[in-house]
Amino acid sequence: MDKDRPIFRQHISSQFNAELEDVRQRVMAMGGLVEQQIVDATTAFMSFDATLAEQVTRNDYKINQLEVAIDEECSRILARRQPTASDLRLVYAVIKTITDLERIGDESGKIARMAIDLSSQERIHEHMREVQHLSRQVSQMVRDALDAFARMDAEAALEVARQDREVDREYEALLRQCITFMMEDPRTIGRVIDIVWSARALERIGDHAKNISEYVIYLVKGKDVRHLSIESMEKEVKG
Amino acid sequence: MDKDRPIFRQHISSQFNAELEDVRQRVMAMGGLVEQQIVDATTAFMSFDATLAEQVTRNDYKINQLEVAIDEECSRILARRQPTASDLRLVYAVIKTITDLERIGDESGKIARMAIDLSSQERIHEHMREVQHLSRQVSQMVRDALDAFARMDAEAALEVARQDREVDREYEALLRQCITFMMEDPRTIGRVIDIVWSARALERIGDHAKNISEYVIYLVKGKDVRHLSIESMEKEVKG
Repeated sequence: MDKDRPIFRQHISSQFNAELEDVRQRVMAMGGLVEQQIVDATTAFMSFDATLAEQVTRNDYKINQLEVAIDEECSRILARRQPTASDLRLVYAVIKTITDLERIGDESGKIARMAIDLSSQERIHEHMREVQHLSRQVSQMVRDALDAFARMDAEAALEVARQDREVDREYEALLRQCITFMMEDPRTIGRVIDIVWSARALERIGDHAKNISEYVIYLVKGKDVRHLSIESMEKEVKG
Repeated sequence: MDKDRPIFRQHISSQFNAELEDVRQRVMAMGGLVEQQIVDATTAFMSFDATLAEQVTRNDYKINQLEVAIDEECSRILARRQPTASDLRLVYAVIKTITDLERIGDESGKIARMAIDLSSQERIHEHMREVQHLSRQVSQMVRDALDAFARMDAEAALEVARQDREVDREYEALLRQCITFMMEDPRTIGRVIDIVWSARALERIGDHAKNISEYVIYLVKGKDVRHLSIESMEKEVKG
């Protein structure tokens, strides 16, 4: 727990307090849905399960609805409560975070569509293990970023940002493998491109998790660390 | 001009008025930089011009700096001015819009990196015309979305959202052509994949322009039209 932790539990207005707590809970609920979509989309992809993949595409509306509802609530809090200092930072971080969560939902939907496409074709087993590994890494990043948000833990958020470099490296390596594989067996191009798109979607999910972790650092430390190197971020968090 | 046009020109506080006008001007400046990056990245891509492409990647920091500065200004306005109604919607729309502008900058950077990669290889001339066409379409969408923002014109914003469907169709057609081409001549895979990534980046720029147009409709009409069909959006704008 950080010494600079926002003190919204100590508000005179218990109603305002309840509103901020509610918005936090909703972000966590939205995050839970998003995590499930990543896991389900990847499972559908790995097991050529079109039924599960279709369920993922059908569930996307729930994430979209939560995005709209949370934005409405934030807008209402800004108008009525006119928050300042750490309360304002919380609302600001939420407004930014839910955009990334919604886009993680979109990326999961793309993986599900690739799963549907692959399920109707001759099966391909190459590169699947690497996709699963990438999926586990980025799911963990999303979970860790949301935990850092819930616990207002800037150090944990920094760790998520650090992991993004590893995800980028693994994605690049997988992409090179896929290109070599397609050159050796051009009949697989249609299917391998689906794998490439899915890996790309996972890499993007890692980017969004990193964005969320940057908002957590802003929330806790009051410093905007976007576009900084990891080394500069470390200074802001630890300094 | 819309009858529901925000009335921030009539504020009692001329200082507050100046702040809102300044934030609008900065968004337009950021938009101008972003448009130039799309045009330069595509020109570099079409003409195998690594020098121009490197200039695009070097200029990205200017967009990032503007994003951070505008967020800081919005946060200050929320804390000090505690805006409500249409003023609050303006600040809210700006907070969301600059995230999309920054990501359009990122997508332009990706096109520039593909241009650098292509410039060092045997030239390929297939699909280039289609990429240029897609680039012109999405640049126009970004310009139109920003014009709609400047003029608070919900109908013009709706037109941008409509164009996104056409961009998606052209992108899909180009993707199919590229896959067929790679299958016929696998030696081109490495280079054609660069074209596919660039087309994908342009398609994403179209999505971001559509997002901005949705914030303009929210700003002018007070209705959140995200995740609605074009037909439902039309009802909200015209009804």
